[in-house]
Amino acid sequence: MANLETCPPLTRGAVLEAHKLIETHIHRTPVITSKILNKMASTPRESTSINDSSPARPVIRLHFKCENMQRMGAFKARGAFHAIERLLQEPGWVENGGKEKGVVGFSSGNHAQALALAATDKGIKSYIVMPSTTRPNKIAATKGYGAEVIFSGPQFEDREVVAAKVVNDTGARLVPPHDHPDIILGQATAGLEFQQQVKDLDAILSPCSGGGLLSGTALSCEGTDIRVFGAEPEFEGADDGRRGYYSGTRIAKVSTRTIADGLIGTISSHPWSIIYERRLVSGMYAVSEEEIVEATKLMLERLKIWVEPSAAVPLAVVLFNEDFRSMVEREAGDQGWDIGIIVSGGNINAEGMAKLFSSS
Amino acid sequence: MANLETCPPLTRGAVLEAHKLIETHIHRTPVITSKILNKMASTPRESTSINDSSPARPVIRLHFKCENMQRMGAFKARGAFHAIERLLQEPGWVENGGKEKGVVGFSSGNHAQALALAATDKGIKSYIVMPSTTRPNKIAATKGYGAEVIFSGPQFEDREVVAAKVVNDTGARLVPPHDHPDIILGQATAGLEFQQQVKDLDAILSPCSGGGLLSGTALSCEGTDIRVFGAEPEFEGADDGRRGYYSGTRIAKVSTRTIADGLIGTISSHPWSIIYERRLVSGMYAVSEEEIVEATKLMLERLKIWVEPSAAVPLAVVLFNEDFRSMVEREAGDQGWDIGIIVSGGNINAEGMAKLFSSS
Repeated sequence: MANLETCPPLTRGAVLEAHKLIETHIHRTPVITSKILNKMASTPRESTSINDSSPARPVIRLHFKCENMQRMGAFKARGAFHAIERLLQEPGWVENGGKEKGVVGFSSGNHAQALALAATDKGIKSYIVMPSTTRPNKIAATKGYGAEVIFSGPQFEDREVVAAKVVNDTGARLVPPHDHPDIILGQATAGLEFQQQVKDLDAILSPCSGGGLLSGTALSCEGTDIRVFGAEPEFEGADDGRRGYYSGTRIAKVSTRTIADGLIGTISSHPWSIIYERRLVSGMYAVSEEEIVEATKLMLERLKIWVEPSAAVPLAVVLFNEDFRSMVEREAGDQGWDIGIIVSGGNINAEGMAKLFSSS
Repeated sequence: MANLETCPPLTRGAVLEAHKLIETHIHRTPVITSKILNKMASTPRESTSINDSSPARPVIRLHFKCENMQRMGAFKARGAFHAIERLLQEPGWVENGGKEKGVVGFSSGNHAQALALAATDKGIKSYIVMPSTTRPNKIAATKGYGAEVIFSGPQFEDREVVAAKVVNDTGARLVPPHDHPDIILGQATAGLEFQQQVKDLDAILSPCSGGGLLSGTALSCEGTDIRVFGAEPEFEGADDGRRGYYSGTRIAKVSTRTIADGLIGTISSHPWSIIYERRLVSGMYAVSEEEIVEATKLMLERLKIWVEPSAAVPLAVVLFNEDFRSMVEREAGDQGWDIGIIVSGGNINAEGMAKLFSSS
């Protein structure tokens, strides 16, 4: 990772620069819409609560930015390519054998494959540290992108220790999955493109795990009239971001088995400074496991795109979270809002998806 | 349906006219590509046959036209809108109460919903005859598009009888699913757009059931250098098109339970005249059920799009049919071919898809 002191300030201007650096390496992913989903989002829910308040009546037009169709199937390619490009710009890094020493990432998910892809594309050695319990298809995919896979123990903390050892042994540079300005600025480019593709967006919703995508999206909207909101699962405390945001204290540890398995992490410190301290995110909302499954089903059947459950969490908020829906009704009035949803990724295999929908 | 004697000749020029008639009603669906699928298509298969001939070594670049993202989720919207527009043009039809008398279709699949959508869009009454065994979600979807649903017995032939009775009772006009020039010219517009979106296509593959899409695609390529091929399931004789094409006699009856349930029908006479008699289709190929499931899985996981198994049949031919692959190697040589695949539709629910991929 490029040294922190060489990083640009975290502003919308820096996002524009990041986009110039990576745009030839990434896909400009399409934005799609659905009349049926607009109608559903703009229809009051049938009241299911025990209190008798009437359901919210927001007017909502949805736009979906398909980062599931990004290279390697998720927005993470943006951050990884930006991190690599910034390293290549760092004075002395290439000259001192940086490409041969390589980069190290720790991840069992999309960041692993993204970093391997970006490094290999640029002829840079990559090491990916994965828990020994990682599923074989994910290991194979990461190797397929050209990485050397190194196994750690099953705990998240183990990975960081092993990654530090690789750095020590090889001189490779660590590229963390979200807690670095270069990663945040890379992920931010999705929100920037979104604004170019859809004029007059009123809001953007992004899923939130480590906070790289959410904080980046917020940066991309800084100084515009677009409000940014975070979406999380609530199962077993997975809504760490929401709880931290409304209590004023970042939550750094969570253990949850949510089906939105890309959103298990907790917000790290650089993203937190943007999301909470700078108040660039306007609110955080959470949804149940059943609501995530239902939103996933709608994205498959109605939008006709393949998404992992984590990517359906923002739509679940729009359709099912009454707090969010009331807020939109209140803020947007009769005119309604054009709401952008970043569809974060589509890396789930058919067998995994089948488990969600099998009537046993 | 417009009277046959008023139909334009079945030429590429007529396809251009059809496109002008419907382009404001349909989506110009996106074309997507995948480096991984290109690599797979261009890699010789591991030999699995008992003879020891070496596998073909074609060079293939694939382009996918996403008609699963067409209105109501399938290319059928094209033919239905074209049939409706042509009716509206027919002298006297509107004046004699045609819109109130309406249109009749018989279908348990995509044609039903397409016709209902197109008719309702234009303020025209629609009747859809469906077998009494049709699944409730399909009935609900068809009613959702504004049709009056009328039930017939479970046999295909029953539907035609009931539809004829509706025509007799109401004065509504019959719109068949594929055996009419207006339908063929409407479906043909997918191939026309494909040529505008991807320059230098060498070939297009289309699935084949009643033959509307395949014959239309062939018309759209008439007089160009693009060759058109048909793709079918082979299970329980579902490859009626292929068998008819190579024996010289159209096969009019098949009974099969293939998972590619959109491809159960047999080629009807107008499509046959284009596919076989005019030789505008250069070859027909068939694949097994296992190959269709595998191709479906690749389209979900790699292309990140939601497709019904019928829509995966052409990709299965490209990847797994050794006759097709040998032909491409022979015809295309080292330069290879740019092959377009029409992704016909995405109307399958999540539970139905789960059955394909559930282990146990």
